[in-house]
Amino acid sequence: MERTLPGWVRREFEPANPDFARVMRAGEVLQGAIHFLGMRLAEFGKGWAEMHLTHRPEVSNEMGPVHGGIVAAMADTTAGFATFSLVAKGENTVTVEYKINFLAPAQGETIVARGQVRRFGRSIAVVDVDVFAVSKGVERPCAVFLGTFMRVSDTSALSNPGPR
Amino acid sequence: MERTLPGWVRREFEPANPDFARVMRAGEVLQGAIHFLGMRLAEFGKGWAEMHLTHRPEVSNEMGPVHGGIVAAMADTTAGFATFSLVAKGENTVTVEYKINFLAPAQGETIVARGQVRRFGRSIAVVDVDVFAVSKGVERPCAVFLGTFMRVSDTSALSNPGPR
Amino acid sequence: MERTLPGWVRREFEPANPDFARVMRAGEVLQGAIHFLGMRLAEFGKGWAEMHLTHRPEVSNEMGPVHGGIVAAMADTTAGFATFSLVAKGENTVTVEYKINFLAPAQGETIVARGQVRRFGRSIAVVDVDVFAVSKGVERPCAVFLGTFMRVSDTSALSNPGPR
Amino acid sequence: MERTLPGWVRREFEPANPDFARVMRAGEVLQGAIHFLGMRLAEFGKGWAEMHLTHRPEVSNEMGPVHGGIVAAMADTTAGFATFSLVAKGENTVTVEYKINFLAPAQGETIVARGQVRRFGRSIAVVDVDVFAVSKGVERPCAVFLGTFMRVSDTSALSNPGPR
Repeated sequence: MERTLPGWVRREFEPANPDFARVMRAGEVLQGAIHFLGMRLAEFGKGWAEMHLTHRPEVSNEMGPVHGGIVAAMADTTAGFATFSLVAKGENTVTVEYKINFLAPAQGETIVARGQVRRFGRSIAVVDVDVFAVSKGVERPCAVFLGTFMRVSDTSALSNPGPR
Repeated sequence: MERTLPGWVRREFEPANPDFARVMRAGEVLQGAIHFLGMRLAEFGKGWAEMHLTHRPEVSNEMGPVHGGIVAAMADTTAGFATFSLVAKGENTVTVEYKINFLAPAQGETIVARGQVRRFGRSIAVVDVDVFAVSKGVERPCAVFLGTFMRVSDTSALSNPGPR
Repeated sequence: MERTLPGWVRREFEPANPDFARVMRAGEVLQGAIHFLGMRLAEFGKGWAEMHLTHRPEVSNEMGPVHGGIVAAMADTTAGFATFSLVAKGENTVTVEYKINFLAPAQGETIVARGQVRRFGRSIAVVDVDVFAVSKGVERPCAVFLGTFMRVSDTSALSNPGPR
Repeated sequence: MERTLPGWVRREFEPANPDFARVMRAGEVLQGAIHFLGMRLAEFGKGWAEMHLTHRPEVSNEMGPVHGGIVAAMADTTAGFATFSLVAKGENTVTVEYKINFLAPAQGETIVARGQVRRFGRSIAVVDVDVFAVSKGVERPCAVFLGTFMRVSDTSALSNPGPR
């Protein structure tokens, strides 16, 4: 499978939480929907994240490709992780809104979503996500997402993982 | 439960298929995702549709409300049904894109989505959807959706239900 | 000209600034772009605003209707005024993002934009706007807008008009 | 001024009209709004376009930066040109809808908009645009745009320029 794409040039920001990698992994473990759908956080850095989803019958629509609602949920989750890599300790982000354009059916063995923070302000973050369907090593774009997230303080376990 | 809301003034269009009500009910039966999530097509007319979802643990996020991805999928489905009420025989619609704003957590016994076609052109339809959480008979807005759909010819069973 | 439309049911919120009507009128006077384009604040209340634009050659595109960029700017301005009616003294709002769907050419003597706040939170407001072209007293929808605004403190004259 | 940006990797498509460069230049000449605002088509290829706007008092808002409505109109125009580079002879595109996120005030000597077609289908095209403010040779992102365009037949001079 091709991991890189012309244009997937990751831009990194400085995270407020030096322990961000541990928080990201803890977040992956805690989010039930991620496991239910079979998504996994494949790679991430300061301001970007890449998630993978293996195509299985449970996530397909009537015609075979992955259901559009799952593509959208995957893009939203990936964007959320991209912002989550930059928050301060005890902080989280919530989705304010997003727009998604469906470009082609999500037909392939694996669905790959790559999210990049475009702006990380004091209260608002803007993220875009490209979603690809990978079939026999070839990536084909299937959706584009542009969303707005809000930083919120969060006292739950998600933003405050326990000691290692 | 309150069924009507100030502002929910349904505008009707003339459907190209006089048999549209039967096609709508057949569509509801055939879409697997609808049943999987527990959505039902509560009411519909020429250019609008209302769907309901009973809040159950399977559709909740970690905090209790219905998961944002499910709210979005419900809005998208409702908008699709609103356009589907206006297509000609043998035609269907696909989602080109949408934007959704999350207004409040979808906390309530029932989630109600009301979709209204705003324009139904030769190839493109525009639909908005209001999503409410209903708790003890009181409706609270939880999301607003604005989407674009494309009319496509469709030879599947969805657009061509068998004889009565 | 028809002023009301089935569905234009204004929902009002409680403004934090009891002097909001004076602030709205002062805002109209101070915004240069409004006068340049010939827009006027026709009516407003607590959480909604209606603006009018007379169709003139300067705001037309090559084909005759009002230019899409002006329709979008008018919708954005109307949404901004709808939020501005609810802010506290010394506060203003800025556009975070919006989506606009163009439904039909803006062909008519007058363009009317009606903005309604859908949510007014502590930091974020969500507004939708319907834009109509009015020709010989008949209103035809020409655009739908859904946008997100952020509340900001503002020390400029816009949010702090002088004594009466 | 920096012309390239990490990530501005232009992807080219095959245009249906081999004479596309001449049509692009003719389109630039014919669109009145472009000249009125002072925009120019700086560079373009098969599926992408870059436009520039010199910051002048006429395009500024009250605070100094270029007015948000002009930033949006510039993004929309740039996206339109990116799609226009791919249409067949006698065809044009119209804006169906777009979303724009404002990232920072458009403060700089020059505003640069780069549009890239993401999908060019039989009837629908999807384009994203990045808008930057350039100040003393440094580019700062000020807006992100994601839009949907529809291909239409066009008998006007815009799509049918006369002999060379």
